Amino acid sequence: MNYSVGVDVGGTNTDLGLVDEQGRVVSRRNLSTTAYADFPTYVRAMVAKADEMVAERKAAGEADAELAGFGIGAPNANYATGCVENAPNLPFKGILDFVGEIGKTHPLPVRVDNDANAAAYGECIYGGAKGMQHFIMFTLGTGVGSGIVVDGKILHGSNGLAGELGHVVLIPGGRLCGCGHHGCLEAYASARGIVRTYLDMRRDSPENERLLRGIADADLTSRHLGEAAQQGDPLALRAWRQVGEWLGQAMANAVAFSAPEALFLMGGPTKVGEPLLGPLRESFERNLLFCYAGSCDVRLSALPDNDTAILGAAALLRQEAV
Amino acid sequence: MNYSVGVDVGGTNTDLGLVDEQGRVVSRRNLSTTAYADFPTYVRAMVAKADEMVAERKAAGEADAELAGFGIGAPNANYATGCVENAPNLPFKGILDFVGEIGKTHPLPVRVDNDANAAAYGECIYGGAKGMQHFIMFTLGTGVGSGIVVDGKILHGSNGLAGELGHVVLIPGGRLCGCGHHGCLEAYASARGIVRTYLDMRRDSPENERLLRGIADADLTSRHLGEAAQQGDPLALRAWRQVGEWLGQAMANAVAFSAPEALFLMGGPTKVGEPLLGPLRESFERNLLFCYAGSCDVRLSALPDNDTAILGAAALLRQEAV
Repeated sequence: MNYSVGVDVGGTNTDLGLVDEQGRVVSRRNLSTTAYADFPTYVRAMVAKADEMVAERKAAGEADAELAGFGIGAPNANYATGCVENAPNLPFKGILDFVGEIGKTHPLPVRVDNDANAAAYGECIYGGAKGMQHFIMFTLGTGVGSGIVVDGKILHGSNGLAGELGHVVLIPGGRLCGCGHHGCLEAYASARGIVRTYLDMRRDSPENERLLRGIADADLTSRHLGEAAQQGDPLALRAWRQVGEWLGQAMANAVAFSAPEALFLMGGPTKVGEPLLGPLRESFERNLLFCYAGSCDVRLSALPDNDTAILGAAALLRQEAV
Repeated sequence: MNYSVGVDVGGTNTDLGLVDEQGRVVSRRNLSTTAYADFPTYVRAMVAKADEMVAERKAAGEADAELAGFGIGAPNANYATGCVENAPNLPFKGILDFVGEIGKTHPLPVRVDNDANAAAYGECIYGGAKGMQHFIMFTLGTGVGSGIVVDGKILHGSNGLAGELGHVVLIPGGRLCGCGHHGCLEAYASARGIVRTYLDMRRDSPENERLLRGIADADLTSRHLGEAAQQGDPLALRAWRQVGEWLGQAMANAVAFSAPEALFLMGGPTKVGEPLLGPLRESFERNLLFCYAGSCDVRLSALPDNDTAILGAAALLRQEAV
């Protein structure tokens, strides 16, 4: 059996898993991204974990267990160069050449792409977008990422950096975003954006607040807001409704670009369910240009929660297959 | 010599031209789109004009003059079906099957696409985008159209209708657009949108108005505003500056989608030159996400003015060549 290694590089943790040809994660490892003196040492540790997982399969009687390659999803990764470039959230600075570094010991295919593109590709190969030629994945988390699939391939554009829909301006002159501009989708629909929406509403109408009174502004997370919404808290529900309205608008705008068959959503904030998705779908339908009516809908990722990032990264190795 | 016929189907006039392999329009004809009882009669008249142009070449001693095919740019055209679908501005209603109709007498390749996609393709084959794999064309006129080229091909999307960037919402809750939504780019950057901008400013500060006092609101065109700006009229200059600001924002947003090498502009309103283009480029640079800085710029179409639509339509026949 040939196994792909899917690697999810995060600022704090790096998760990796052995993915079989059916898209099952058969084994997992984890390492601390910050525990290594330099990038080559970190990569050696990561590769050692992959070797370890294969050795384990062999020891369990699977004599033909082999590594087929490494797929790496990382922030600020550029598919065109195979490098991670100046990632503010990683401990290693400058240009990180994963392809070159892994190649020193393992002469195998290595594909690197940003995490949202990897997520889109995972959906394409193993999830709900199987067989689709045109779709867009939105990932909600610390930021808002996106991966755009056009004609069955990830849209990389002229410099490898296409698909930054979290930084399309939704509200000109609106909230300050981490990128330095005002009004980006990310400032409204990231986990922090959702909290900001709630806090703005709480400030404007403090008498409405109920369940979350005990939590200080700085400690509030989108998870708190999800729990409050599920318990019927009116202000939390109103915040999710507003975020759904904004996201629906942004997603309808994206349709006018590539006329996808579907738009997918993944990430922690989507777990709240209907309080977000109901208003989002309603806004999406209402904001869609007439010529796209009925041609496109909004769906949740069909990948299993815990495996999303690893499967997405492993899927990068399958890019020619589509 | 093999000639492509480029056909520009408009609500009032249909222009067609014989285009040689070097992209020169060697002969032209025109017919009134509204002068025919039904669609088949109209198509027969159009094809007869094409035959006439070839006969003329033969009569002039070019014995090997031949038709290679028809490329047709039209509003509401769908590349995927080869039909024009329910075009509100054409006299013929319902589904107009150009491919089928021309095929009845001329067993030649026929390609149909919407006019903005044709314009993009013309730029790709004959104009300033030669050799580019990723670019976007914005066409300013009665509406705002766009044609998006990804990996050297027009992006058609899942239903043939991708690339409607004129209907991406720029200002939520803003001006009513012809599509029924509020705040679309088209409501701000079409010829009429530019006039609306000027009229809004004139209403707010009537004392500033100078050159255009004699023209009634309903008679004012973007051409008047272009002339006034070139004569230094402060209010006209302010209106163009504002439209440039908006367009620059919209074009920067589009970069975050496909990371193009360049964005092109064509159409009547671009003729005003610096009063629009200066503020537009300034706004574009300012609004561009940092990771695209320096990778992409805004250019005017390099196609000769009068030939743009015919060349674009003829270029549709060259789609495999790219």
